Amino acid sequence: MSLQSRDPILLTPGPLTTSLATKSAMLQDWGSWDASFNAITAKVRKQLLDIANAHESHVCVPMQGSGTFSIEAAINTLLPRNGHMLVLINGAYGKRMAKIVEMMGRQVSVFETADDVPTTGADVERILSNDRSITHIGVIHCETSTGILNPLQNIAEVVASHKKSLIIDAMSSFGALEIDAAKISFDALIAASGKCIEGPPGMGFVIVRKCVLEKAAGNSRSLSLDLHDQWVYMEKTTQWRFTPPTHIVVAFHQALNQFVAEGGQPARLARYTKNYDTLMAGMRELGLIQFLPAKIQAPIIVTMHAPKSASYEFKDFYNRVRDKGFILYPGKLTQAETFRVGCIGAIGAEEMRQAVHAIGDALREMGIKPRNAANS
Amino acid sequence: MSLQSRDPILLTPGPLTTSLATKSAMLQDWGSWDASFNAITAKVRKQLLDIANAHESHVCVPMQGSGTFSIEAAINTLLPRNGHMLVLINGAYGKRMAKIVEMMGRQVSVFETADDVPTTGADVERILSNDRSITHIGVIHCETSTGILNPLQNIAEVVASHKKSLIIDAMSSFGALEIDAAKISFDALIAASGKCIEGPPGMGFVIVRKCVLEKAAGNSRSLSLDLHDQWVYMEKTTQWRFTPPTHIVVAFHQALNQFVAEGGQPARLARYTKNYDTLMAGMRELGLIQFLPAKIQAPIIVTMHAPKSASYEFKDFYNRVRDKGFILYPGKLTQAETFRVGCIGAIGAEEMRQAVHAIGDALREMGIKPRNAANS
Repeated sequence: MSLQSRDPILLTPGPLTTSLATKSAMLQDWGSWDASFNAITAKVRKQLLDIANAHESHVCVPMQGSGTFSIEAAINTLLPRNGHMLVLINGAYGKRMAKIVEMMGRQVSVFETADDVPTTGADVERILSNDRSITHIGVIHCETSTGILNPLQNIAEVVASHKKSLIIDAMSSFGALEIDAAKISFDALIAASGKCIEGPPGMGFVIVRKCVLEKAAGNSRSLSLDLHDQWVYMEKTTQWRFTPPTHIVVAFHQALNQFVAEGGQPARLARYTKNYDTLMAGMRELGLIQFLPAKIQAPIIVTMHAPKSASYEFKDFYNRVRDKGFILYPGKLTQAETFRVGCIGAIGAEEMRQAVHAIGDALREMGIKPRNAANS
Repeated sequence: MSLQSRDPILLTPGPLTTSLATKSAMLQDWGSWDASFNAITAKVRKQLLDIANAHESHVCVPMQGSGTFSIEAAINTLLPRNGHMLVLINGAYGKRMAKIVEMMGRQVSVFETADDVPTTGADVERILSNDRSITHIGVIHCETSTGILNPLQNIAEVVASHKKSLIIDAMSSFGALEIDAAKISFDALIAASGKCIEGPPGMGFVIVRKCVLEKAAGNSRSLSLDLHDQWVYMEKTTQWRFTPPTHIVVAFHQALNQFVAEGGQPARLARYTKNYDTLMAGMRELGLIQFLPAKIQAPIIVTMHAPKSASYEFKDFYNRVRDKGFILYPGKLTQAETFRVGCIGAIGAEEMRQAVHAIGDALREMGIKPRNAANS
């Protein structure tokens, strides 16, 4: 099937498949100064605080650009120039966060575990007890490199007990996994439009503790990425400081409305879990094995071992699956040949079942009969 | 007419009215890793270099976020940490550029003229002769604050004769006014998707001299806004470093195709000039007076003096014109009460004529008979 003839289903962790209603919201132009557009921005900010149950303590500041831009904005604004940030790493996004801090010339320490080893609260307890100079802790909730889930509640409790500041990259978990500001203490949580809320990519947002943001004026060395300035201006004028991605904001609002209509985070998690279970059942039938133990695997994106066959070559496999209408994602590990399959987006169990068939057909075309399937 | 019932016409300098074909391009989801999407990114980069006639000397690096993000990326990457930048100011965007340099902690000098006074080559000659420490010069081609046009050719010649580096904010001029890299010497030119190319807002781009960019590794203190890193990664992989705004990129490509089909920059300038002339003829009929002398007014966005009437209040005027289907833009001057009307976007002389009628009707409803009209 040609990509020219129908939309492929994106099994990627953002951009992902959005609903036609979400995309259709982009069929209108909006004035960025107009009250009707600013009302939508205000609604989006409120809806995002709703999801995190954070109205009491936090504010939501949107920021144009990809999720990484919002992460840099949060760190740049909240970490004082003489601050010291500890970044917990078990994948590429943890490494990226550390690099952001390093490039801005502020002190950074890292604690790195293997790709398949979650950071624990005990790890953080030990590090914070040994180094009192650490002021901020950065953690990746669900590390998209593998799909590994770090124990956020546990880590947040330790950070809170040390009275330090927690910054959470919740890019690929927000909206799917519960993050309740009344239960988990954090100063900043960052995610983006094109992930589990199922909007188009193009903007991110930071849910940030109000009393912390209020004191963060002057920390930023970047005008574009100054979260405090963005917030103050938006509160004063209801507008974005600089030209917002109007079509993306409006489509994201539409996606948020659909999120609420579906039943919010619990319903989204249930659908993604069913997607994941459907995918995994199919993968087992095909004899393909997942990289992570199931108990640390979030139902967001799954890393699969590539079939152990001399005939396997990712590009060929990818192209064959793509020609059947499904976009896979390459692996991001150095120690093992893998590929990734996203379980998120405006898709359900039927699409996952079809994806399994497409993957099975592609492997058969390549003359690959995965080992486990041969054994069964 | 209610805004719920039809799209208003945006007489704003971006976001602006885009064509339905451009918006419709956003009705598809794309995998950011997929070759078909990366081919579109490559085409966009090539098309932008075509417009500037810059293939020989420059490369085009796209960047997600608003135009300001791309301006900061260019300065952050091209201005060495021990560099010294002179910013030529006659409006809000010049001030913003100077603030960007100041916030990143690098040396900045400013030369500021009044809102209605273009910077001249002679000004720049005098400043560069007096201060040999200046390494970079930043100029706003068409200052959207008023719509004033600065004499780019003249300034570029002086900068080149001093062998300094010129950075051009061509946000609201690129695509409409001729900027030919074979005739005007510059190291970086920045614009964005949602201006005279008539795409949706959400990304910018820098057309940057290749031999200069090659030497710019390590200057940036921002990972997100590191133009060198973005370029190197894109050249190596054909992909964006971080999640691109896929829908925006594809719509921008569609807008570029329409730009070419219309006849490129000369045709676009001709249409905008006709829009401007139509608007001005109508404004004169209504007795409304433009702020700038015609010879320094670009046909992009026009600053109009507000009617001298006690009954005039911008918000009321704006709302009345909006209810008739046209979105105006507020003035940005402190010394005079003004409003602004954009002449750009997927609109023609008919829409401008209708806008004039809407403005006239609104003024009549407000009981305002502009002075000149009364005299005529």
